[in-house]
Parts: sequence; C-alpha cells; structure tokens
Amino acid sequence: MSQTDHPDRPATPVLDRVSLPSDMKALTDRELIQLADELRAETISAVSTTGGHLGAGLGVVELTVALHAVFDTPRDKIIWDVGHQCYPHKILTGRRDRIRTLRTEGGLSGFTKRSESPFDPFGAGHSSTSISAALGFAMARELGGDPGDAIAVIGDGAMTAGMAFEALNNAGDLGKRLFVVLNDNEMSIAPPTGALSRYLTRLYGERPFQDLKAVAKGAVGYLPTPIQEGARRAKEMLKGMTIGGTLFEELGFSYVGPVDGHDLSQLLPLLRTLRERATGPVLIHAVTKKGKGYGPAERAADKGHATAKFDVATGTQAKAKSNAPSYTAVFARALLDQASRDDKIVAVTAAMPDGTGLNLFAERFPRRCFDVGIAEQHAVTFAAGLAAGGMKPFCALYSTFLQRGYDQVVHDVAIQRLPVRFAIDRAGLVGADGATHAGAYDIAFMANLPGMVVMAAADEAELVHMVATAAAYSDGPIAFRYPRGEGMGVEMPERGEPIEIGKARVIVEGKRVAILSLGTRLAEVMRAHEALTARGIHPTIVDARFAKPLDRDLILRLARTHEALITVEEGAVGGFGSLVAQLLSDEGVFDNGLRFRQMVLPDTFIDHASPEAMYREARMCAPDIEAKVLEVLGVAQIGEKRA
Amino acid sequence: MSQTDHPDRPATPVLDRVSLPSDMKALTDRELIQLADELRAETISAVSTTGGHLGAGLGVVELTVALHAVFDTPRDKIIWDVGHQCYPHKILTGRRDRIRTLRTEGGLSGFTKRSESPFDPFGAGHSSTSISAALGFAMARELGGDPGDAIAVIGDGAMTAGMAFEALNNAGDLGKRLFVVLNDNEMSIAPPTGALSRYLTRLYGERPFQDLKAVAKGAVGYLPTPIQEGARRAKEMLKGMTIGGTLFEELGFSYVGPVDGHDLSQLLPLLRTLRERATGPVLIHAVTKKGKGYGPAERAADKGHATAKFDVATGTQAKAKSNAPSYTAVFARALLDQASRDDKIVAVTAAMPDGTGLNLFAERFPRRCFDVGIAEQHAVTFAAGLAAGGMKPFCALYSTFLQRGYDQVVHDVAIQRLPVRFAIDRAGLVGADGATHAGAYDIAFMANLPGMVVMAAADEAELVHMVATAAAYSDGPIAFRYPRGEGMGVEMPERGEPIEIGKARVIVEGKRVAILSLGTRLAEVMRAHEALTARGIHPTIVDARFAKPLDRDLILRLARTHEALITVEEGAVGGFGSLVAQLLSDEGVFDNGLRFRQMVLPDTFIDHASPEAMYREARMCAPDIEAKVLEVLGVAQIGEKRA
Repeated sequence: MSQTDHPDRPATPVLDRVSLPSDMKALTDRELIQLADELRAETISAVSTTGGHLGAGLGVVELTVALHAVFDTPRDKIIWDVGHQCYPHKILTGRRDRIRTLRTEGGLSGFTKRSESPFDPFGAGHSSTSISAALGFAMARELGGDPGDAIAVIGDGAMTAGMAFEALNNAGDLGKRLFVVLNDNEMSIAPPTGALSRYLTRLYGERPFQDLKAVAKGAVGYLPTPIQEGARRAKEMLKGMTIGGTLFEELGFSYVGPVDGHDLSQLLPLLRTLRERATGPVLIHAVTKKGKGYGPAERAADKGHATAKFDVATGTQAKAKSNAPSYTAVFARALLDQASRDDKIVAVTAAMPDGTGLNLFAERFPRRCFDVGIAEQHAVTFAAGLAAGGMKPFCALYSTFLQRGYDQVVHDVAIQRLPVRFAIDRAGLVGADGATHAGAYDIAFMANLPGMVVMAAADEAELVHMVATAAAYSDGPIAFRYPRGEGMGVEMPERGEPIEIGKARVIVEGKRVAILSLGTRLAEVMRAHEALTARGIHPTIVDARFAKPLDRDLILRLARTHEALITVEEGAVGGFGSLVAQLLSDEGVFDNGLRFRQMVLPDTFIDHASPEAMYREARMCAPDIEAKVLEVLGVAQIGEKRA
Repeated sequence: MSQTDHPDRPATPVLDRVSLPSDMKALTDRELIQLADELRAETISAVSTTGGHLGAGLGVVELTVALHAVFDTPRDKIIWDVGHQCYPHKILTGRRDRIRTLRTEGGLSGFTKRSESPFDPFGAGHSSTSISAALGFAMARELGGDPGDAIAVIGDGAMTAGMAFEALNNAGDLGKRLFVVLNDNEMSIAPPTGALSRYLTRLYGERPFQDLKAVAKGAVGYLPTPIQEGARRAKEMLKGMTIGGTLFEELGFSYVGPVDGHDLSQLLPLLRTLRERATGPVLIHAVTKKGKGYGPAERAADKGHATAKFDVATGTQAKAKSNAPSYTAVFARALLDQASRDDKIVAVTAAMPDGTGLNLFAERFPRRCFDVGIAEQHAVTFAAGLAAGGMKPFCALYSTFLQRGYDQVVHDVAIQRLPVRFAIDRAGLVGADGATHAGAYDIAFMANLPGMVVMAAADEAELVHMVATAAAYSDGPIAFRYPRGEGMGVEMPERGEPIEIGKARVIVEGKRVAILSLGTRLAEVMRAHEALTARGIHPTIVDARFAKPLDRDLILRLARTHEALITVEEGAVGGFGSLVAQLLSDEGVFDNGLRFRQMVLPDTFIDHASPEAMYREARMCAPDIEAKVLEVLGVAQIGEKRA
C-alpha cells in the first residue's frame, strides 16, 4: 500500500501505519496533521480511479482525523449524515485496501453501511437522518444499551430538512450528552437556500473563527448547567455580540463555534475538551470547504460533488460514451418549452436543481422556479398551495426522495385533487448509489391513491409527450416517472403532444402472449420480442404508458384474445402489475384460465452495481423476459442459458 | 336560528346578523367582542349535540373573529392548521345552519375542506401543513395567480413538526408578504414536548403580554427593511431583553408578540396595522387557552380536545355503549406486560400518548417512553437508532400518520433490517375523522418492503399475541395493525404468546370457496359464513394474520383445492390481496382457472360517517362478502338486497 507498491500513488508514510483508528492513539498532533494531508491525497487518488463523491469527503478530512483521534470508535459512534463524505473515514477504518472498489459491483458502498463495518453504526444515503439516529444511540446508552458516545456529523444543507429540526428539538429537550458537528460548507449538492443558510453565514460572517484556545477553554463555559433565566438572557445578549448561535441555544444545545474545520490545531483540543466535559447536547459549528485541497474540485461550481473517474493532475473527467441526451435533460427542455408558452407553469425542487435539470428553468424563469432546500414535505405541500392558488406547479424530485413527501402527496394533493404535476426522476434502479437510492416504490405508493394519474415514459420521446400531457391536465394530480441515465437515442418530436389519459399504445400486434410493459423496460421487451420471433413466437407488445388509470378496454381485450399476459415494470410489487391483477380478478378473467405473470423488482434490496447489472440481478432483462414467455407458454428451454 | 326558534340554544343577537364575514364589516369593535362571546356559546351548544373537537375551537374564537373582521375572506385565505379548530370559522362562513351536522354522515366535515366552502382554501386533518400551503398561495399571488393575503394559523404543537420548520425556512428566504399566526396554547393533543415548546413558554414567561398599543404601533418597526448587519444585531440584542422571538427573526420573519389571543381590543388593532403595513413574512405569537370559556373543557387534562356529545351545564359526556376494551387499550396493556419482563423494551410516539395508549407506559416506565412531538420522521429514525443501540423499540403511530415517516421506514429501518416494532393504530376506516385520517395504505406501503413483517389483528386477543410476537422477533422490522374502536369482546388470553412468523390460522375448513381474511373484517366474514351456510355453501375461512410473509403453503394448497379464493383486507389495493395475486401468478395457479377476487377499499376517498357506514359504502360488510361468494360461484341472487 506504500508508494513502492504503486508508483502512481501518493507517498503516505504515516497513513501506512494506520490500519484502524486505534493506531492513531500513538500519533502526535503533528503526525495527525501529516496524516490528514496523506488521507486527502489518498482520497483524491482513490476517487480518480473509481469516480464518486469527492468534494464532500475532501471537506471533512480533518474532521475525520480529529474525531477518530479523540473518540474511541467503534465504541463511540460517528454517524455521517448522507454518508457520501465517508471515503476518508473508510480509509481509516480498515477499508483502505478496498477503497478503489468504491461503488462498483461487489465493492465498497459509496455511503456508510452497517453490514460493511462496525465503524459504520448507522448507514445513510438520504440526508438529515444522523441526529435522530445519534439520539437513538445516546438514549439507548442511557437505558443500558450499547455504551459509548454518539456523534452526528451533518452538513448545513442537511440541516434545512425538517427531520433534523425535529431531532434537535427532541434532543434539546431530553438533555442527554450528544454531539452534533455541523459541517458548514455552504454547499449540499447545490448551494443551500433558505433562511437557515443565511443565518449560519451570518454566524461566521463578521469574524470568521474564534480564537482556538479561547474556544477550547471557553467551551466548558457553554456546557449546560441549570441556568437561571436572568443569567441565560445575559449570556445570550453577550453572545449576540460575540459568537451567536442563539438559535441552537434556544433549542437546548450548547453551541460551540464557529471553528475552522480544517485546522487540526483547533479541532483536536476542542474535541478533547468537549469529550471530557460535556454533559448535555452540544452543537459544534465547524466551517469547512467542500473540495478542500484539490484545486479542480474547489473551483468547480458544485465543488466536486460527484465525479466520474478523473486525471489527478488536471482534474479532467472521463467522458461518457453515448450521445443520447439524459432523461433529465429531456425533461428539463420539454418543461422549458411548455413554460415558455404558459406563464402559469412553475417548478419546485428540493435542493436538486442540477439533478432534476431545473437549473435550466431557474436560469430562464428565475421567479417561477423554487428550490426549497432539502425539504420534500414542504416541497409537495407548497406545490399544492401553488396549485390551489391557480398556478401549474411541476414538482421535480427523485423517486427515492419523493418518499419523504408521501403523506403530503396523500393528504394535501390527492385528497384535495389538486393539479400538482410530479416529475419523478431516477425511477427504477439507479446504479452506483445502490439500494438507498433505488426508485422502486413510487408506482405502488402513487397509483393506489384515488384520482392520481401515473405515467411512465418508455423512452425520451415519450417523456416529452408526458410533460405536455401533465401541463395540459388540470383535473387532479398527475405523475410521470423516468429513469436515471441516457435515453434510447430515439427520434425526438419537435414538440410534445398530450397523450389521451389512460390510453396505452400497441407496439406490435401478435398472438398467444401479450406483454404489457410500463416504462423503459420496453427496450428489453423488444429485444426479447426479436429473440422470440426467431423461435416462431410472436407476442403482442404494448407500452402501457399509464399505471393509472389503466387502459381497461385494451387490457381486457388482450386478456380475452391471448393465452397469456405478462406485465413488466421497473418497480416493486403493488404497482402496475397489481392494478392489472385487480382488474383481471374483478372482471373474472382468471376464472377460465389466463396465464398471468407479473415481472416486478424482486423482494430484496439490490446492492450497488451498474444499472444494467442490477437489472440482470433483478432478472428483468431481455433474456428474463424471453424465458418468462417461454415458461408461460410451456415451451421447453433445454440447455438454455441466460446471456 | 335565534333563541325563539330553539329555546335550548343560547341567545345570539349579534351572531344572528352575521351570515358571512362581509356582514362583520359593519360591526363596531364592541359588537365584535359581543360576537365572539356569542360565537363561543354557539360552538359549545353545537358540539354538545354532535361531539367533536371542542377545546381547539374555543381557543381561537377571538382569533377567528379578528381575522375575518380585519381580512377580506375568501379573497384573503385563512388556512387553519390541522383544521379541527375551524368550527367557529364554519359558523361565521355560511355554515351555521349545518353546524349541528358536524362529523355525521352527509354533514359538515370536522376539518376544513375545499369542497365544502370557498372560505376553506386549503383542507387539513394532519398537522403542520398550513405554512407550506399559505406560502404556496402567497407565491401564486406574486406570480399572477389568485390575489389576496395568505394567513396560516398554526398551533405550537404543530410547529414542532419538521415540515413547519421547512416552510418557515423557505418563507423567510423568499421574503414575501405572508402571515403566520402562532396559536400558542401549550397543548396540541397532549401537552407539547420538546425544546421549542420550552422556548415559546420562555417568550411569555416573564412578562406575559406586551402592552397592546405599543405592540400595535411598534409592529411597524419590525417590518423588514434592508437591514444593516450592525443595526440588526443591535435590535436583536434589544429584543433579547424585551420580547424575544429571535429564533423566528433568525429565520427571516418579523416577530410580533406575544399577544393575548383572547383580547380583541389587542388583536384587532394589531392585525389592522399588520395588514396595512407588512411587506414580508410576519409571525404573530398569540397566546391562547385551549377550551377557553367553558369550565369543563378548561379543567380537563386534554382541555376538551375531542369530546362525545355532552350536557352543556355539567360537561358530562355521553357514554359509549359497549364493554369491550378498545384495541388501543389492549395494545397498551399487552405492551406493558411485555415491558415489565424485558427492560430493553422502549416506546416511541409522536404527540399521541393518549391516542396510542402509551400514556400508561409513560406512567409506569417514564424513562423508557419517548414522546417526540409531532415528528413522525424523527420518531421512526430515532427508533431505528434505539434498535441499533441494542434496545427493542415499539414505535406506536396511527396508520395515517405513519405516512409521514414512510421514507424513514424504507431508508433507516427496512434497508438496515433493524428490529423496530411498528404498532399501527387506527388502521382501516376511522369514522368521524373521515378521509384524511383513513388508515388505508399501510399494508401496501409496508408489505412490499424487503424483510418487513406485516401482521393485522383479527380481534383483540390476536392483538395481544401480535405484541408478544413483535417483542420476541429480532430478525428485522415487524409491524402490526389494528383498528380504531372497541374489540370484538372475545375472551382474552392471560398472556400473549408469539405466533409463528408467516403462519395463517384456519378458522373453518370448508369447500369450494376459501376466504382469506386479514384483520378485523374477519367478524364480517364469519357473519357471511353463517348466511352462506344457511344456503348450503360452506366456505373455508382463514385468518391470514400476515400480509407478509405470506403463508405460501397454505395459500397454494387452498388455491389448488378450492374453485375460488377471495382475499379481504381493510386497506387499499397493493397490499395483501396484491401479494397473494403475485404468489398465485408466480406459481402459475391462474393458468388452469382459479376464481380469484380481492376485496379491498375502493378507489375513492370515503367521506366521514360512522366506521360501519363507511365500510358499507366500501362494500366490505358481511352482505358484500356473501354476495361476492355467490357471484364467484355463479349462484344466482335473484331479488337479493344488501342489508
């Protein structure tokens, strides 16, 4: 692992002596500083070969070293919010030898993961869960569960989410020892928005950092004691003039900071003091730089948030191969087209302007685009309010994050039948981000809501038409889903045309077996069709387009004119196939025998790999579809192998 | 509507002149004060005949009068958070003639409802949505949508929910004119918990109310102007000494208060000033008393939160008829029994200690019971943290509120396979609270998560065993659901015994048709069985117990030995019946013809009525089950009528 073994890797003499955090106990502070430098170099080197989240990890290199040096992990539990800043942590906790397998099939997860290491006490992927989890560990400790301290490390972006506030509110009330490190890097994925962000900036705006030694010693003064009201107010007043933090103090936390999160000569004594003396919840406000120490990341607009493989010297990223536009870009352009002709169209996103493509919308129509921060609950109800106020809101979220706003979809949108348009990006399996980001459930949890229209695009041209359909539809809520990644490369329509609600399209009229496909598996279905045709089997192929309302007439006709019917969707059971099954059973179609099969995502959480590999594991590729047809028709497949 | 018509009703001479808020414009302030008194009397009188939420409405009588007197509704939009305090509002907005139909079938909803009146611009039922919705209206107005002001009225309990914070954070950032009335009554359903609540109490703890005229005039001074940092800090420091509110100021709101929410001589000039002068978001901190003005409510522990019909003079509530214990009480006692023998068992609820029965647990084991406030997202992840820390958490929530923690169930519990026990109360249709509170979706959204165990109790004895099952199970997450209301009156076991995971129980071995029932519809199934037996039809009856994992062997055996199979569940499509359909299709059972039917909740939101009436409308009662059996067996039902 030393330079001798890999001449292309950085020299890391101190890091080479650290296999586990316990090895750090023997290091001097000067050596820890050196360790941090080497850890940064190693992180850059590793991500240059794997791709992944770079900026966040570089921002917490010193925090990672300081926390592991001062606390006693894994007995003490560090919970990294979101988890994408955990690469340096993984290098220090026995996973350096696998760090260049990050996010690849069979390799390390790009997030923390309980099953991967005892040093990952609580996995993540979605943001803003760390304080709740840390409080759980802290209260378990108080009640005779696992011993040790709980330390949540949470970014300022993640702090805007309601659940972080809920957790602060509860932790401040319970008053037990708990550490929250607010990693204030002014940047979640997008620059953070919202009043909280401005507040945090003000906290260090005037005098960037407190004097190290004063803070380290002074920290003791902030530890909670039964506080007299008068004394409290006096202190607050004083702090208003000096270091601020009253917002957190009001919620029951001792506020310490701001401190320079890259200065170990500050961090180490501060954390040592707090570890020794804290008796209640403490918030440590550390100011860091996303991408710190790597020029190309520091200079990038997103501070090197997520990157492909790159050349360390230049920062040049490896190019993707295909020329087809991404679904995200197609959605964004289609929405812009609609919005340019209808000034009632507005867009809402939750801290994902780039990921959803709404950055383009924000550029063109800044007043009509709302990035509400990491706040999906609010995003959905805010969109409902906009709709009730006469606007045409498009609420663009990833499928996995829409789960955060599920109750709001039910309670504020569906029950009130408000015409909110849900643009559901990253539907289906997503690849390197793995199970936490899979868009597996949206069909199921949306399509059983009364009055909800649910579409899925089979290709990027369909997506354009679905955006037009959603823009034109105002009878109630409507959703359309599309996957991560590039389109099929199909010919694009000049302009989107509204699709008739609830109408499927027949791609091929065949016989014996009908395949009802919802979404982008259609390409795999067509590949299967080709293979089957070569065998003399000619299935009917339908692009269902709608999970709800179903094209009842067509489905019942197909069921009555075919021996077998197979549904295919990029989602878990409970969605499109289940609605078709309900229709068929209601109508008594099964009574006389219909060979019916549903192809859905399997009942497992699928680990990160390429999307293609994940779909192969899910058995939802062309050979699987072909095999399902053969099985249902009772055609022998002796000696067959999957591709 | 005057006393002459109804000698048992209060005299309301001023109220009798007000059909709509526009009639209030002609009233003097003195008359408005009289109007408030009459409105209070009328509210008490109405709820005494209908039952319903009393305390919340009585707490906002003066706010209701003041808002309608000062603002121009329905052009200006008042959004009542939760909505259960809206009875006085309904009386003033053209619905007085129907106020005694509250919460009854065909009558007024107990919440605000868009379809009921233009004075209800945004419906509610769940808490903490009002600021998001109001911000939606405000931004729609700014962009050429509906004109008028948006006013959210939100309780201090509702303010603890993350989505309220998300909305404040966004509203403070956007900076547009918006009014948030914080109705601080120290009481949501339970006394509020959390640091925010303590903070609010401190705000008025020392000097209860500001001098009315000073505040009314001074309010202008708080309206946002481009603020110099120096000036801001000076003002903040000053306010720290005077009226506080810095937490809201930090988030970008102008804070006004605290004011006495029952003193119209304060509220009217204050609101008039703000209406005239506000240019940005304003938070008005009004302190009120839940149950104000009605002794029995003021003295009640829950301040008359929800009540049965009652005698106005004495406050004595009408008694329920049955002697069977409620499912909630059975759950609470069973959990106490388990917890008394296992000190790792802890309980988590979200502001529902009474509703979930955990008040008993909190009394007995105060350190092991956590009421986290209205904070379902945090509740679920906190429980996950407790489980990861070695405890055995029971997370007790209503089905409809568990929707708020859905992403956390997926991301923090299921993916990590943490043994959190979900006690899902109010599953199925709930009666007077109507569509917003229906527990319709939990089976579907829980049972398609990998590794989740989902049970439903058929009666209260089963519930006891399911609590024991959940306590004993530690391989992963497990959930059990049970309805609102009283049990069946069955014999109770002395102690719960764990049920084998995934094992159904056969109630009656019959032939031709098998009915698979999940949950408390079993009683209706048994009634149907009786009626069918009289006709010479002898169905097999199974209590499935588990929606997941399914009792595969039993179900496949039944499918192969019966002509027909019918599933029955108190939930929407996508749940138990869909999982059975998936199993049957996977196994090719349909291929040779199986008369399969799924009885699920219909694809509509069912309005409030008695639970029985709602289930009749859902066609899920004994006659419906009987009819389904006859239909599926092809038995003619000439001249049949539903009961």
